[in-house]
Amino acid sequence: MYAMNVARYHRFPDCKRRGLWALPRLAVFTSEECHYSIQKGAAFLGIGTDNVYLVGADERGKMIPAELEKQISQAQIEGAVPFFVSVTCGTTVLGAFDPLMAVADVCERHGLWFHVDAAWGGSVLLSQKHRHLLDGIERANSVAWNPHKMLTTGLQCSAFLLRDTSGLLHRCHSAGATYLFQPDKFYNVAWDTGDKTVQCGRKVDCLKLWLLWKAVGTEGLEKRVDRAFACTRYLAEEIKKREGFQLVMEPEFINLCFWFVPPSLRGKQAQANYWERLGKVAPVIKERMMKAGSMLVGYQPHGSKANFFRQIVTSPLVTRQDLDFFLDEIERLGRDL
Amino acid sequence: MYAMNVARYHRFPDCKRRGLWALPRLAVFTSEECHYSIQKGAAFLGIGTDNVYLVGADERGKMIPAELEKQISQAQIEGAVPFFVSVTCGTTVLGAFDPLMAVADVCERHGLWFHVDAAWGGSVLLSQKHRHLLDGIERANSVAWNPHKMLTTGLQCSAFLLRDTSGLLHRCHSAGATYLFQPDKFYNVAWDTGDKTVQCGRKVDCLKLWLLWKAVGTEGLEKRVDRAFACTRYLAEEIKKREGFQLVMEPEFINLCFWFVPPSLRGKQAQANYWERLGKVAPVIKERMMKAGSMLVGYQPHGSKANFFRQIVTSPLVTRQDLDFFLDEIERLGRDL
Repeated sequence: MYAMNVARYHRFPDCKRRGLWALPRLAVFTSEECHYSIQKGAAFLGIGTDNVYLVGADERGKMIPAELEKQISQAQIEGAVPFFVSVTCGTTVLGAFDPLMAVADVCERHGLWFHVDAAWGGSVLLSQKHRHLLDGIERANSVAWNPHKMLTTGLQCSAFLLRDTSGLLHRCHSAGATYLFQPDKFYNVAWDTGDKTVQCGRKVDCLKLWLLWKAVGTEGLEKRVDRAFACTRYLAEEIKKREGFQLVMEPEFINLCFWFVPPSLRGKQAQANYWERLGKVAPVIKERMMKAGSMLVGYQPHGSKANFFRQIVTSPLVTRQDLDFFLDEIERLGRDL
Repeated sequence: MYAMNVARYHRFPDCKRRGLWALPRLAVFTSEECHYSIQKGAAFLGIGTDNVYLVGADERGKMIPAELEKQISQAQIEGAVPFFVSVTCGTTVLGAFDPLMAVADVCERHGLWFHVDAAWGGSVLLSQKHRHLLDGIERANSVAWNPHKMLTTGLQCSAFLLRDTSGLLHRCHSAGATYLFQPDKFYNVAWDTGDKTVQCGRKVDCLKLWLLWKAVGTEGLEKRVDRAFACTRYLAEEIKKREGFQLVMEPEFINLCFWFVPPSLRGKQAQANYWERLGKVAPVIKERMMKAGSMLVGYQPHGSKANFFRQIVTSPLVTRQDLDFFLDEIERLGRDL
């Protein structure tokens, strides 16, 4: 939302005072795999969800740059003015990374704001081994990053990074309330950052990241990221070895998507109602694990794919035994289904 | 922002999908003493700050209902559609309570959403003795209340209360992301409130209020409110007794606004530059208290009034000695000015 609002203000500063009525109809672009915050943001900011053009993604969940070009043309044909493209680094379900370089090229060609939603995947930058997933992020106009996700700094800790150094954030959001931000202080009031934000009373959330960083160092943060990848890799290999477990796809990131196929359904993929029946398995296993109090893991359908589990390990306290227990427990809870 | 967005959606549900371009130009009304969040909200939601009509307030900072009527007519003449009125219970500087009954009447007459910004003053409802300040709040369409202010639950704890019981909040904000809010759970998914909000990952802030309430009880909360009023009353009376201290006005709430007039300025109110010189006193005293590390208190100018201190005591740990120290310390830090 911050990115969309700042991008809008940057292109049409009149908007802040006169509202959207002073502007042409705007168009936002993101992939069909994007986080729902883009739609919520468009609705909240008065842009409307119909003006979010969803760009097709490939079978691994990555935005297809040629499809983006098509959607931009489509929006223009429909009389809207494209202004904002949001790519996702780490999509919610599949953990996909959009092709940043190719999309940045499209944005440059059309003069569009290039926003990177790296809320989930941004922490990968801390890993020398895996940071290539984010190649091209340096071309972004803005980046969203949630250290509270992969780094587990504790809720909430969300960073909004802006390329601009001219004070755009302040111009866009400031209300200049003299009762709160007195200009006649004895220190440099440029340090009073409150008027750059939309919220008033709020916690200094960045302290959580600062404390964690001080506590474990850059190397410690890198270890967390690499460890999460290693746990995912371990689980993926175990799943391939175990009967009844089936990967939805090889993980690129740390979203491990898989089905548990109970004995009664094994080898029956050809049956007409196979996928319908498989889709009912995850909810039952989840109900059972919640009632047993043994663990919690999310599941969801995705496109034409029936309900599958999405396992993500970020805590540095999770051990290999825990990972084995996770698979054993699913097996135990689902073996009679 | 929530209130403005919900009110907009309630009147023009098309807005969520089609954006503000599908709507006539909208007009928001609030008093000139309102919190800056109204302007920030109007800008962020795409309505624009020019479409916030500021209604005149009386000398105690209360919205004048007749002025509201005038502004509504003015907006209509200018081709805008009035839809939202925000009154303030406890303005930021003076602590004024807008006349709720009279404004509610105006809203009813014109079919406008009646929002009460009780972020600061809402806690007064907990006091049998003082709750009359909020008479009429029961007529509101929505109320904002920050228990983290007067009740000191700890940042952040903000409640948004809605009269609607038809699921308006959900219809207005939902994105229906099936990967997060699975409908096929074994329990009643009506308890999954996440899709009613704009933010995704966030803390369960209401727990702070719940814990405090459990810890001190309704009576304990009432005591906090009554105690804050009593501290303010004590300070106000002390200020009247002390040479060099001058109330800006008798406090209605717990915002105690006063000047400290240093010896060199006493009795010189007739001098041309008196107010200009007095306006420089509070910043110097504040600088000195910060450097001494002895205390912190805000100051601000207000309309034609030069910088004055605004003291607010909410902590139940503050003692009468602390209050005496507060005045003594200002005297000590400012006596040579």
